[in-house]
Amino acid sequence: MKTSDTLISTLREVPAEAVIASHQLMLRAGFIRKLGNGLYTYLPIGLRALRKVEQIIREEMDAIGALEFKPTVVVPGELWRESGRWETMGDAMLRITNRAGQELVVSPTAEEAFTALIRDELSSYRQLPIVAYQINTKYRDEIRPRYGVMRGREFMMKDAYSFSADQQSLDEIYGRFAAAYRRIFKRCGLTVIPVRADTGAMGGTGSEEFMVESEIGDNTLILCPSCGYAANDEKASCAPDTPLAADGGAQKPTDKPYEPMDTPDVKTIEELSSFLQTSPQSFIKTLIYKVYNSELDLTNAPGCAALTRVTETGGAAPYYPESFFAVCIRGDLDVNETKLAAALKASAVELASDYDVERITTAPVGFAGPVSLANAPVLADRTVFDMHDAVTGGLAKDVHFVHVEPGRDFTPFITADVRTVRAGDRCPNCGASFYSRKGNELGHIFKLGYKYTKAMHVYYLDENGKQQIPIMGCYGIGVDRSLASIIEEHHDENGIIWPMSVAPYQVCIVPVKYEGAMKETACSLYTALQNSHVEVLLDDRAERPGVKFKDMDLLGIPIRITVGEKHLPNVEIKLRSQKEPQLVPAEQAVQTVLALIAEESARYDAV
Amino acid sequence: MKTSDTLISTLREVPAEAVIASHQLMLRAGFIRKLGNGLYTYLPIGLRALRKVEQIIREEMDAIGALEFKPTVVVPGELWRESGRWETMGDAMLRITNRAGQELVVSPTAEEAFTALIRDELSSYRQLPIVAYQINTKYRDEIRPRYGVMRGREFMMKDAYSFSADQQSLDEIYGRFAAAYRRIFKRCGLTVIPVRADTGAMGGTGSEEFMVESEIGDNTLILCPSCGYAANDEKASCAPDTPLAADGGAQKPTDKPYEPMDTPDVKTIEELSSFLQTSPQSFIKTLIYKVYNSELDLTNAPGCAALTRVTETGGAAPYYPESFFAVCIRGDLDVNETKLAAALKASAVELASDYDVERITTAPVGFAGPVSLANAPVLADRTVFDMHDAVTGGLAKDVHFVHVEPGRDFTPFITADVRTVRAGDRCPNCGASFYSRKGNELGHIFKLGYKYTKAMHVYYLDENGKQQIPIMGCYGIGVDRSLASIIEEHHDENGIIWPMSVAPYQVCIVPVKYEGAMKETACSLYTALQNSHVEVLLDDRAERPGVKFKDMDLLGIPIRITVGEKHLPNVEIKLRSQKEPQLVPAEQAVQTVLALIAEESARYDAV
Repeated sequence: MKTSDTLISTLREVPAEAVIASHQLMLRAGFIRKLGNGLYTYLPIGLRALRKVEQIIREEMDAIGALEFKPTVVVPGELWRESGRWETMGDAMLRITNRAGQELVVSPTAEEAFTALIRDELSSYRQLPIVAYQINTKYRDEIRPRYGVMRGREFMMKDAYSFSADQQSLDEIYGRFAAAYRRIFKRCGLTVIPVRADTGAMGGTGSEEFMVESEIGDNTLILCPSCGYAANDEKASCAPDTPLAADGGAQKPTDKPYEPMDTPDVKTIEELSSFLQTSPQSFIKTLIYKVYNSELDLTNAPGCAALTRVTETGGAAPYYPESFFAVCIRGDLDVNETKLAAALKASAVELASDYDVERITTAPVGFAGPVSLANAPVLADRTVFDMHDAVTGGLAKDVHFVHVEPGRDFTPFITADVRTVRAGDRCPNCGASFYSRKGNELGHIFKLGYKYTKAMHVYYLDENGKQQIPIMGCYGIGVDRSLASIIEEHHDENGIIWPMSVAPYQVCIVPVKYEGAMKETACSLYTALQNSHVEVLLDDRAERPGVKFKDMDLLGIPIRITVGEKHLPNVEIKLRSQKEPQLVPAEQAVQTVLALIAEESARYDAV
Repeated sequence: MKTSDTLISTLREVPAEAVIASHQLMLRAGFIRKLGNGLYTYLPIGLRALRKVEQIIREEMDAIGALEFKPTVVVPGELWRESGRWETMGDAMLRITNRAGQELVVSPTAEEAFTALIRDELSSYRQLPIVAYQINTKYRDEIRPRYGVMRGREFMMKDAYSFSADQQSLDEIYGRFAAAYRRIFKRCGLTVIPVRADTGAMGGTGSEEFMVESEIGDNTLILCPSCGYAANDEKASCAPDTPLAADGGAQKPTDKPYEPMDTPDVKTIEELSSFLQTSPQSFIKTLIYKVYNSELDLTNAPGCAALTRVTETGGAAPYYPESFFAVCIRGDLDVNETKLAAALKASAVELASDYDVERITTAPVGFAGPVSLANAPVLADRTVFDMHDAVTGGLAKDVHFVHVEPGRDFTPFITADVRTVRAGDRCPNCGASFYSRKGNELGHIFKLGYKYTKAMHVYYLDENGKQQIPIMGCYGIGVDRSLASIIEEHHDENGIIWPMSVAPYQVCIVPVKYEGAMKETACSLYTALQNSHVEVLLDDRAERPGVKFKDMDLLGIPIRITVGEKHLPNVEIKLRSQKEPQLVPAEQAVQTVLALIAEESARYDAV
């Protein structure tokens, strides 16, 4: 392609709205333009790079036997009603009622569409497993779309879904995806951190998120410098640590019975520690949570007798639309609500209102505690059982209990790990001290289980003619976000430095002037490279050489051939990633370039 | 691909909802499945065929220098407000207000997006012309989506837009598209009829529609068997014909002045002809139309003095939001409303309400006429001026005028061709008698003019540094509809017969049984063909041979290799389009197949 035949639209200034490198460089290099809030048009050269990433993903999907489908982007709302997510997906899902009164959704994800499709096609175990995918347009109505295509409203995703007869088949397919994802990111030049992740609103267990480090990442990664343990903080766990008493020593069990103590005007744990001359680690913090759609059986749980339980759920587990829990944790720690929701098998949790807190604790806000609590079941974090001679709220104004022994003075309904793990906590595998990074999720694979196949009534007949429900896996990659992340990882102050595998063009030819012998040499190299199936951009613009060099550096084309009068019959060949060019006779340039392409490409070969 | 590794999902029965061949066969062959009303999922084998069509279009676009962009599918409503189409696009455009109160549109077409994009990029004449395209998802909220992907709600379109400095450049680019479209349809195996078409709501003049004959087509094509004239009836014109008098002879001018005649209880033209003993061709039919957004200058038109005229239109022509016209035409003919709207430079026309008719004609409905009409301007079809001694409505109850001479007794404000042309009318070029067919539009190219660039304020600086507005062309192809039309043209009672150029697989191998020597031969042919880059499907299912043959015929794979025990070491090679197979030694099969592929492919080479 000659620059005069395409649209090279570079900007010298950094657009004010762009704060991260990929957004700035995609705008400056003319890869994207803003069409609306969170909506970006890819320009021709940007689209070439996007298609490269898309094609790598497609090849790796095809290689593991996944089949490409193309459902519509706009899908019937009734499918989302069937799965139950019409209500639970939140406002980021764009819901439309059309002129005929039909409910429609601009797909934010595709579990429903694929589950409905497979439901219609599946009859026999002989068809299983089925692994289906699409690479298609998605929309999420982000309130504050940011960072260009890194967090846009419309974006392109690869979604894959597997349907298996049994867990063993799911495990095997999950393993194929785990390997394919590593190949995909390797081929794209992306350094990813695979982390165990909470599966969030998607449901199910067993998952891996593929993260890239990013200052603007919306995930906090907990990383072990020693053994390689890596987890999203929404799922991370740590080694138990010994809670300390006020004197800095270990807490010791007490024989004293617990007793109330007046604590007037004491509000915070710090004030309390000081007032009682104890450590925050001696305090059992108790938080009242409102819990949505818990699938736990609360029949015998304290204070739950009057709760509504939905049992007619079409094959799904019975659940309580609303319940309340008292959640206890060591005073210096925080509850991770994602871990809490998982422990409660709930779709969401939130801190209860003051009204509910006062109702449940029979006291003003600030005096909740697990001892003698009758109106809600207690969930205790594991840390609570390492504590001794502890302090808790006393269920009455200005009262705390002291000398509390967990297990002796109260028995939780559930014990679980709901602690927020932080840098400095210790690795459960090797005991090393964690560090923490912000991360962006590029891909996510997980074993989804029966959530959608149950809710949407997907059946097949097994070998014995018995009706069975298939088990699902779910595997996504954000295509635009991967592209932007490549730029985050591969750039310098002058622009993008594309890995050969995803470069919009592999080579650019820059004649210092597009005339005379320089033009002749440039054109003959252009033709020769095209004949060798090299993707080459010839800069035939009547610009100063400095402008052309700057533009090609900004665009990030991996190899530049400079054709200048003073060097002819030699030409300069330079890697974008390196400072110094090599002088090569023009007639050897093609050979040199082909060798460089092979060498550079090999760096991104999947192993 | 082995059938066991993909999803072959054929149906024996014709699904009840499908009435046309392509819809039936795409469902039966498992190419598509319905996801919702007018919403279809492509299954893997169907997607392969769709991608072939898409790729042919992409190659031909790239070949004429068009550049591929990727705007979003969901676009800001404000762009549609800028162009003025937020109001005029009608209810088929899916409008959404999101949770932030922002108006969004699921793109039904992309003039606005591309015009906005080019507005931002364009500064100098040196950048022109720009030819941009996308192949992307579209949505139109059809009330009654029908015929599968032929008229679905969501579909894939190639839209291209050109931006030129002058008409000459637009003409040249238009010519490139006209040629590219012929190549695209030829390569797809589609017999298209290029017709001159009305440009409808898109605006502008100079256009060509690419039609395929179809019983369910929503266009009526007027075709000349002799000279090849072809037009959409919304644009067709015909040779003038001589109106006949009651005696079957030519109508003769009269010297008698026109005079009123009592016509009690006479309602229809037939009753009137009989009552007056004249021919329907002597009657000047007058219809009162309500006209929207006419850009004509009605300052001096009868009855228009009080009309509102919008003059502040941001560079667009001034227009009248509402006006009324009396439209006259020979009694045996019909007014074509699309031609009428074009003649009135209006966005739409509709028959006026009884209230308005009575107000304008000062008489009950049924007595409209052009003579002495003071309350509305008259538009006369050209046929009116060949009439003599005519009858018109008399602007009073039960009154008609007789002995009316057009031109003598009334003068129209405009004369234009607004007649509905039909089969039997004569060709304006050669005089032959037209025939008519139903047609479906697959593509449309037209010279759009300044409509969007003016409305959306797109400027560039010309060679003299003067601000200018670029002129646009617009070029669309429906991808799904083209695919369905290929099936309409290429099928028999047993299934699809794909042209080699768009077949999902070029070759299928059917071992009579997948075992022993047959399996061995089938597998070695499979490998050999794959090594020769042939797209081959190996039917490795444990089905009866009859089932496999039927399925492969239904799928429409152009070449079938049958491996049966009784013929080994020979195999049967058969074209889907032919009855008889040829017996070929297995070791020569690859060579024979490659020759057949080349031969069959050549049939669809663009010339």
